[in-house]
Amino acid sequence: MKLDETKISSECIYSGKILSLYRDEVLLPDGKKSFRECVRHNDGAAVLLVKDGKVLLVRQFRYLYGREIYEIPAGKSDDGENPDCSALRELKEETGYIAKKLTPLCKIYSSPGFTDETIHIYLAEQFEEGISRPDEGEFLNVEFIPLEKVLEMIERGEICDSKTVAAVYKYVILNK
Amino acid sequence: MKLDETKISSECIYSGKILSLYRDEVLLPDGKKSFRECVRHNDGAAVLLVKDGKVLLVRQFRYLYGREIYEIPAGKSDDGENPDCSALRELKEETGYIAKKLTPLCKIYSSPGFTDETIHIYLAEQFEEGISRPDEGEFLNVEFIPLEKVLEMIERGEICDSKTVAAVYKYVILNK
Repeated sequence: MKLDETKISSECIYSGKILSLYRDEVLLPDGKKSFRECVRHNDGAAVLLVKDGKVLLVRQFRYLYGREIYEIPAGKSDDGENPDCSALRELKEETGYIAKKLTPLCKIYSSPGFTDETIHIYLAEQFEEGISRPDEGEFLNVEFIPLEKVLEMIERGEICDSKTVAAVYKYVILNK
Repeated sequence: MKLDETKISSECIYSGKILSLYRDEVLLPDGKKSFRECVRHNDGAAVLLVKDGKVLLVRQFRYLYGREIYEIPAGKSDDGENPDCSALRELKEETGYIAKKLTPLCKIYSSPGFTDETIHIYLAEQFEEGISRPDEGEFLNVEFIPLEKVLEMIERGEICDSKTVAAVYKYVILNK
């Protein structure tokens, strides 16, 4: 069965700082018309760094969930920036760590029903400590948490961030 | 360090079929003001079903990526619907399968920087075949793919959907 949808027209609802929202009219496979609500967002990059069996995490307040959550260091790519460069940059900005060797772990589509965001996830295999310089308006705490505890926190729903869950699970599979 | 952000005001930019967009003014931990772009989306539910070592996947065209992608059966909850009910309903609508026993695998926040979507992921442990009834305007193919091949497809970046990656990895860890 042919599943393609074709764009008929696109209306920009909002163009903001970190995202844009479009409402596109599309032609469906059965010849009918419909609309797709599209949140366009630059791709992101994230880094899993494990040191002495402990995972490097940033704890920050996420306004959309109204609470502090744990995530691996990550951020969105600047326009035209390669994901591995974004990963190195975000790791250094948020935690001070400088990765000497990054290996791709996996990439994820955050939520393909409404956004085009792709997050490229890397493992930092060689690294050294440095000084963090978070962006203005970015407030976070950097913590190392033992891998076993991170897995328990995922199990209990205390760590839920999709990139963090994917990265930690992949790491466990690679090291079993 | 106190990391909380407090809402000062909220502007609704768009209220649509599957999402709403708000632009909220917030008070940051350092007393400065900023804005948060917030895509509000109902929570979702997804089901991993493995039969004879093969994973039940739906292949559908995702307009935002301009191509067909594989995902485990999933969808957004109706207002007030429990995630386990959404999971059962979506599994049946999309694939025809009826789960007799669902076990929570994990939950994920799709992309906490700009959306509040949470996806609850379940494992179908007892199930039987039935007849699928996709929503109007939803076109998909249902396929069983061997777990080992699914893992290779994730490795090659052919399967990227975050809920699918998290579910498959968790399943591998549980069964190792």
